[in-house]
Amino acid sequence: MNLDALYSELTLKNDTKLALVVLDGVGDVAIKENNYMTPLEAAKTPNMDALTRDGAQGRMTPIAPGITPGSGPGHLALFGYDPIEYQVGRGVIEALGLGIDLKPGDVAARANFCTIDNEGIVTDRRAGRIPTELCEELCEKLSNEIKNIDDTEVIIKPGKGHRFVVVFRGKGMEGPLSDADPHREGLPIPKPAPVASKSVKVKKTAKMVAAFYEKALPLLAGASPANAFLMRGIAHQPEIPTFEERYGMRAACIAVYPMYKGLAQLVGMTKIEGAQNIEDEFRQYKAERDNYDFFFIHFKPTDMYGEDGNFEAKRKAIEEFDAALPILLENKPDVLVITGDHSTPCVIKGHSWHPEPVLLVSPYSGSDKLERFTETGSNLGSLGVFDAKYLLRLMQANAKRFDKFGA
Amino acid sequence: MNLDALYSELTLKNDTKLALVVLDGVGDVAIKENNYMTPLEAAKTPNMDALTRDGAQGRMTPIAPGITPGSGPGHLALFGYDPIEYQVGRGVIEALGLGIDLKPGDVAARANFCTIDNEGIVTDRRAGRIPTELCEELCEKLSNEIKNIDDTEVIIKPGKGHRFVVVFRGKGMEGPLSDADPHREGLPIPKPAPVASKSVKVKKTAKMVAAFYEKALPLLAGASPANAFLMRGIAHQPEIPTFEERYGMRAACIAVYPMYKGLAQLVGMTKIEGAQNIEDEFRQYKAERDNYDFFFIHFKPTDMYGEDGNFEAKRKAIEEFDAALPILLENKPDVLVITGDHSTPCVIKGHSWHPEPVLLVSPYSGSDKLERFTETGSNLGSLGVFDAKYLLRLMQANAKRFDKFGA
Repeated sequence: MNLDALYSELTLKNDTKLALVVLDGVGDVAIKENNYMTPLEAAKTPNMDALTRDGAQGRMTPIAPGITPGSGPGHLALFGYDPIEYQVGRGVIEALGLGIDLKPGDVAARANFCTIDNEGIVTDRRAGRIPTELCEELCEKLSNEIKNIDDTEVIIKPGKGHRFVVVFRGKGMEGPLSDADPHREGLPIPKPAPVASKSVKVKKTAKMVAAFYEKALPLLAGASPANAFLMRGIAHQPEIPTFEERYGMRAACIAVYPMYKGLAQLVGMTKIEGAQNIEDEFRQYKAERDNYDFFFIHFKPTDMYGEDGNFEAKRKAIEEFDAALPILLENKPDVLVITGDHSTPCVIKGHSWHPEPVLLVSPYSGSDKLERFTETGSNLGSLGVFDAKYLLRLMQANAKRFDKFGA
Repeated sequence: MNLDALYSELTLKNDTKLALVVLDGVGDVAIKENNYMTPLEAAKTPNMDALTRDGAQGRMTPIAPGITPGSGPGHLALFGYDPIEYQVGRGVIEALGLGIDLKPGDVAARANFCTIDNEGIVTDRRAGRIPTELCEELCEKLSNEIKNIDDTEVIIKPGKGHRFVVVFRGKGMEGPLSDADPHREGLPIPKPAPVASKSVKVKKTAKMVAAFYEKALPLLAGASPANAFLMRGIAHQPEIPTFEERYGMRAACIAVYPMYKGLAQLVGMTKIEGAQNIEDEFRQYKAERDNYDFFFIHFKPTDMYGEDGNFEAKRKAIEEFDAALPILLENKPDVLVITGDHSTPCVIKGHSWHPEPVLLVSPYSGSDKLERFTETGSNLGSLGVFDAKYLLRLMQANAKRFDKFGA
């Protein structure tokens, strides 16, 4: 018997409220240059410190030892889905990041403008990194001329600089396809072809992309420098069992950035719109507390400053988060988790594979008798080091949402 | 290659003695109400403290993160069997608990008397919770009248209150079947049907249960309030490779309660009978030390008091256990493990998913330099957090009962 099937069989419903608070990329590493402190250790966090007295700590491997996740797999694991089993294409993630309301079966691709010569050879893969305004202009031109191909709707949305996204919304399509990108200059744009499956659906998708190129390239002909475009990560939004089907909990997503709302929407969470900062987010939690069982609350600045390598700003972001925490605690959830979706160490200036520190507080979590919530502290906790995909299961257990296994 | 096959291939025999001492449900959580102490932390345990100086500690996940095991899966994991692969029906566990000497292939069901009306509709699923004496009387009546159905022996044994167990001992039968229980009043008793497999064996079992109802119901007709019965968890005792086949060790079970003797018997351990308390049990170990390689010694009170939510009694039970320990240590096993089959936190008043603390002492365990054996201490131990099914493998290794893998 498969473990997920067992978990499903044991799942119970009750009136408990659960909150998963994600400080994106909060985990860090202590190095000499920072006096052997992490931003979490250097920050003053009286509210989290108070919570740790009644909580259990541990560290979570985001995917598998040594694997650095993007935001997609990082969050899917936090939502309790095996991130290797449920893979989401880059096009889909990019579309979600631009706030496109994707539906299961939609095929999405990351695209960017490029320059080709008279023979169709790519001479600049980024079209000289054209400004966002020009990208928006070109996307509008394409959008106005290409709204449909046969029975399929085409959605084109500009991103930053030379980047944009194309979504094909129709019937009977699926990915993944190989990239319409030679990945270096001096070669023509290759035709995307089926990668794994050669099903009728994948073949239809390949034809659709080819038809899109046929319609779009003439519209750009003669323009300079952006007279063509590349497409990568062409795949469909997979059918993922919804959060409610899987855990019997109505789930809400409270986030500022569209990417995280999109990831939550992938598993069927309801997006609560309008928050501009963490105080807003915690207030929304309080306002919506009766309407949902589970709340995913996302805090972005820790990751942004980690990516910048800005230790001081990351430390301050943590302090701002901690200062806002009492709003949430005014109506504390029965099970509260504070963690990250991956680490973003300042010394790496990017996501990393380091296990995330995790704090879990419930009437049944017990106390690990730790004074603070930090990377070093969480190494000593009762949760040990575990795979992130099990966090949701521990939250269910702490909410008494599991029946006993066997007699 | 499957890991179990590798372990088997590497397994060696020698003269070492191993003891697995299970303080049932000993694990607990530290909460504010108990001054952030667990019963194990609050107890005075000079003998265990002395052992920890030369021992390794860790925490064991009973089944998988968040899953709370019954005694069956909890013990199977401690005996080194994957508790998800080897599932034992509730009827079988109940029969073992009543001390029925089950054999592989026996089909067992939990049953209880109920009340039905003239149309066969269940009006009280527990027959007004009749007293044990009446249950015994009714079971005797059924037993006297129904000893066999065709070539199959029928064994009926009363439990507490309205509960009893029915065992079908014959050839070519297996479960599981769906319950002969509507699970609420106002409905008739459904006919049990095959659940997973539709093999000839399962069909024979379904016919057997139907035939039993046909013979038994008329015997109860007119009685009040118990004029019918329900049956649940109908399944056969699975074929499990014996402990001796798997580990090359002759194993003895020393326990007071029939359930644990039954679970040990499932894997072919020999039951040593007659112990009334932990001192008896340790004396039996000493008396039988030369006759077996492996001893499973079970201590029940910690679980009982955890289920009662009685912190003080649980603490005292641990102290009583500790006071008896020197009897065992007079002829110390080469590998000694002290742990639980699951946690039974007083605040939960029942089994839980929390990893059990485990102490392993052998000439090769090394010392974790911990002063005491507690939940918080074991978080820091060299064994880390691991799945309970691997404990037996660590015991084999510490007994030098594994060959080297590869050159």
